[in-house]
Amino acid sequence: MIADSTPQTTPTALPPEDAKDRVRQLMQGLQDEICQALEQLDGVGKFRQDAWEREEGGGGRSRVMRDGDVFEQGGVGFSEVWGTHLPPSILAQRPDAEGHRWFATGTSMVLHPRNPYVPTVHLNYRYFEAGPVWWFGGGIDLTPYYPFAEDVKQFHLTMKQAADAHNPEYYQVFKRWCDEYFYLKHRAETRGVGGIFFDYQDGQGEFYRGTDPEGPAGIYNKQLGKPSPRSWEDLFSFARDCGKAFLPAYVPIVEKRRNMEYGDRQRNFQLYRRGRYVEFNLVYDRGTIFGLQTNGRTESILMSLPPLVRWEYGYQPEPNTPESELYETYLKPQDWANWTI
Amino acid sequence: MIADSTPQTTPTALPPEDAKDRVRQLMQGLQDEICQALEQLDGVGKFRQDAWEREEGGGGRSRVMRDGDVFEQGGVGFSEVWGTHLPPSILAQRPDAEGHRWFATGTSMVLHPRNPYVPTVHLNYRYFEAGPVWWFGGGIDLTPYYPFAEDVKQFHLTMKQAADAHNPEYYQVFKRWCDEYFYLKHRAETRGVGGIFFDYQDGQGEFYRGTDPEGPAGIYNKQLGKPSPRSWEDLFSFARDCGKAFLPAYVPIVEKRRNMEYGDRQRNFQLYRRGRYVEFNLVYDRGTIFGLQTNGRTESILMSLPPLVRWEYGYQPEPNTPESELYETYLKPQDWANWTI
Repeated sequence: MIADSTPQTTPTALPPEDAKDRVRQLMQGLQDEICQALEQLDGVGKFRQDAWEREEGGGGRSRVMRDGDVFEQGGVGFSEVWGTHLPPSILAQRPDAEGHRWFATGTSMVLHPRNPYVPTVHLNYRYFEAGPVWWFGGGIDLTPYYPFAEDVKQFHLTMKQAADAHNPEYYQVFKRWCDEYFYLKHRAETRGVGGIFFDYQDGQGEFYRGTDPEGPAGIYNKQLGKPSPRSWEDLFSFARDCGKAFLPAYVPIVEKRRNMEYGDRQRNFQLYRRGRYVEFNLVYDRGTIFGLQTNGRTESILMSLPPLVRWEYGYQPEPNTPESELYETYLKPQDWANWTI
Repeated sequence: MIADSTPQTTPTALPPEDAKDRVRQLMQGLQDEICQALEQLDGVGKFRQDAWEREEGGGGRSRVMRDGDVFEQGGVGFSEVWGTHLPPSILAQRPDAEGHRWFATGTSMVLHPRNPYVPTVHLNYRYFEAGPVWWFGGGIDLTPYYPFAEDVKQFHLTMKQAADAHNPEYYQVFKRWCDEYFYLKHRAETRGVGGIFFDYQDGQGEFYRGTDPEGPAGIYNKQLGKPSPRSWEDLFSFARDCGKAFLPAYVPIVEKRRNMEYGDRQRNFQLYRRGRYVEFNLVYDRGTIFGLQTNGRTESILMSLPPLVRWEYGYQPEPNTPESELYETYLKPQDWANWTI
């Protein structure tokens, strides 16, 4: 898929002329591949598609599966949108994009399984252009309800393998960035066990382009110094390979856990923990805020929210239970790739 | 309760020396009065209190009722907190408070009834001081799941009566401000049928101190011109009387609707509509954002969230049903006080 005819040798180079087409194809292909594999995995549920257009420019196709055998709800969306003014939340990070028309395309997915032993999972890859500025962003992260170290380790190792093939430093930086980003400050909890996350990857700067240079992921920038420039092609193929790693990272976990028996206790805990997903997405999530700020299609933006959720004032897990193990170990950043099982 | 010994004749006057004590007593008294009346009304549920302290200064008492006869969950909180730096969201509105230590106290309440024919209701009154700057804010608003015009009219008339006793212009301005404030832009829906809402009332400026001078409530400022200065005592007693209007505004609705029969259809619709409450509180609500930004007690801030919530991708009410009537009429600003039944 890499067009050798448009080599990118300097980091300030413009993207290839067919950049938008190629990324669109990548993002649509990822959506197709994932939906097909999830239908096969589920065996019962089917995705229904809504194609939509956005008044200010662009559109997308939202696909939702409801009441599957595995998936109580799953949404996989593709969108391609453009406009004249980027919202403040993005300009704060990329002031050089100010005053340019922008283009954004991406695929995102959230799956809410019914069985509390099957983790929720999130994927998002996206690409922005605004005048001479362009960047890739995205990631994959896992949110288990019950602790199975082997599942988490295999998930992280699969993502690490995909990242290592591009740069041996990527995993450590983007894994830490994921822990930083998917963090509920008001709960002092990670959203789940993380995975990898990156943003503003334009090949020019450090790997970590987040908001906290003194944070864990920012520390790596200092250790690594200024890395060699990476081309548009480098980052395109990196995003592509991370997207492709989703199925091998997640499907084996579903197969292992989908038939485990559970009762009201596990179901109630799952519904309660789903509340954290809602809190994260509505209070912190960059994609959700971007969508709402740019007058996006609300139903498509919020199809990440779970079908059924519980809040309970003052809940605390009982000591020495799987629920308390989740809090004590899994909702804190851990070195999962090297976890001793 | 009004101390005649500390008259406030100029709008720039400092608050009375015992201002904080008096507002604290007012806010605690309101919490006590409401909790007592709601327990009596419910007949089964009892409030459990958690007293808490805040590391940076202050504390509060959170009271939650669960699994009552009427109330599936109800939270009534009092808090009194202080610190050195107001968060940006408030300084943007009140730049004159910059650089001053601040003090804030308030009572807030959200009730989630089980029966879908009984509306959810929200109350919040608060008082801020920051150096020479002080202001009152708050309001009461109703969120029905099913349309009963007589309930909504009586709710609005009760609030209007309380406001009229202080200033015949208050209701029209604060009713419109409520419609503006409790608005879900991404859904193009009001949260419910409103009530009254005001903020930044320091007696010096116009009644409407919101962010949209061209919006409906802002229009009234222009019509009214600059009103006569109002004293601290004026605003204290206005906030007090609005708080006291809550029980006569809401209790009769509960009594009328609590024993109406309902089925899965009504329950599912209620759970779905509760999702809007979550969306509003996490995306827009000033109190929630203030609490999370000032490192408040998360469980107390989020006890406003419903005990059980549903999201459903692409839901639309069937035409010519009570559900569609809610959308068409009740989720848009209406002149409820003059509604023809």
